[in-house]
Amino acid sequence: MVAKEKKHEAEEELEEVETTEADPTEAEEIDIPELSEVEALTEKFNEMEDKFLRARAEIANMSNRNKNEREQLVRYRSQDLGKKLLPAIDNLERALATEVTDDQGASLKKGVEMVLESLSVALKEEGITEIKAEGEAFDPNLHQAVQTVPVDDDHKADTIVTVLQKGYQLHDRVLRPAMVVVAQ
Amino acid sequence: MVAKEKKHEAEEELEEVETTEADPTEAEEIDIPELSEVEALTEKFNEMEDKFLRARAEIANMSNRNKNEREQLVRYRSQDLGKKLLPAIDNLERALATEVTDDQGASLKKGVEMVLESLSVALKEEGITEIKAEGEAFDPNLHQAVQTVPVDDDHKADTIVTVLQKGYQLHDRVLRPAMVVVAQ
Repeated sequence: MVAKEKKHEAEEELEEVETTEADPTEAEEIDIPELSEVEALTEKFNEMEDKFLRARAEIANMSNRNKNEREQLVRYRSQDLGKKLLPAIDNLERALATEVTDDQGASLKKGVEMVLESLSVALKEEGITEIKAEGEAFDPNLHQAVQTVPVDDDHKADTIVTVLQKGYQLHDRVLRPAMVVVAQ
Repeated sequence: MVAKEKKHEAEEELEEVETTEADPTEAEEIDIPELSEVEALTEKFNEMEDKFLRARAEIANMSNRNKNEREQLVRYRSQDLGKKLLPAIDNLERALATEVTDDQGASLKKGVEMVLESLSVALKEEGITEIKAEGEAFDPNLHQAVQTVPVDDDHKADTIVTVLQKGYQLHDRVLRPAMVVVAQ
């Protein structure tokens, strides 16, 4: 009985060794003496701590990056719709240049004026403003010169004489440069 | 001589013990047998691994959360400007209702029509559309009843008879409900 049990135990041990050998990592751990196990564990811990610290840094970076992205998205959210409204505003301004001769025409014009005013307020609230141009120094970032006239007493070189089409900017971004005539 | 040395050694030992006792942490470490150090290190490692795994999960969560936030910001970016444009559109539509009697008036009206058309296209491109109302079943999420008329052969109960002011929605969000007359 005892002999049989011993044999059985031996077989179990053999099986265990075989199983362990199938996993090289665990096999190593078993072979390493106690002090090396401490060293190995310390190394494993240091590696994990390093991974954790890098993950924590990544969290901080992501948080900052996302905050900036959100701010940019909010700041410039009206860029596309704002840009598309500019031709409508041009057309309304052109319509206002029409001479009217009767009360109906005058009433229509009054209505258009009110619309333009409300559009202008809406755009301003979203950060969209007209680019200063007439009389200003020509700035290729804000103005597009489509014509030049000779410099005279009233108009110094590189200043804007006339605005042919208004320009608009959203905060610091130009939605459309002003089309201008420049003295040269 | 030997007794003196012994005594000296004993004194040194005493001193060492005193020094060690001054630092309780080190005293503990010295007292713990080798196996406990492995256990302590394993526990430290497991805790650190747990912290790392939680940080990694947080990174995945943040990434998803920020993607959703960005998508929402982009999807509804035109909400504020779009809402502010609605009174301008109302006014242009009212202006178009004006009867004109001469060429100037007709030209002004033509200009306003073009502006309305371009505004409507711009809004549609941003996802802003008119809320269906006339003839539709009354839906308190989309329509605001400001008046009721008796049900008759042409108008079933709880259907919209007339639209007093157009409503608009940005994708699934109502910017402004339609103001309607409902049959009841």
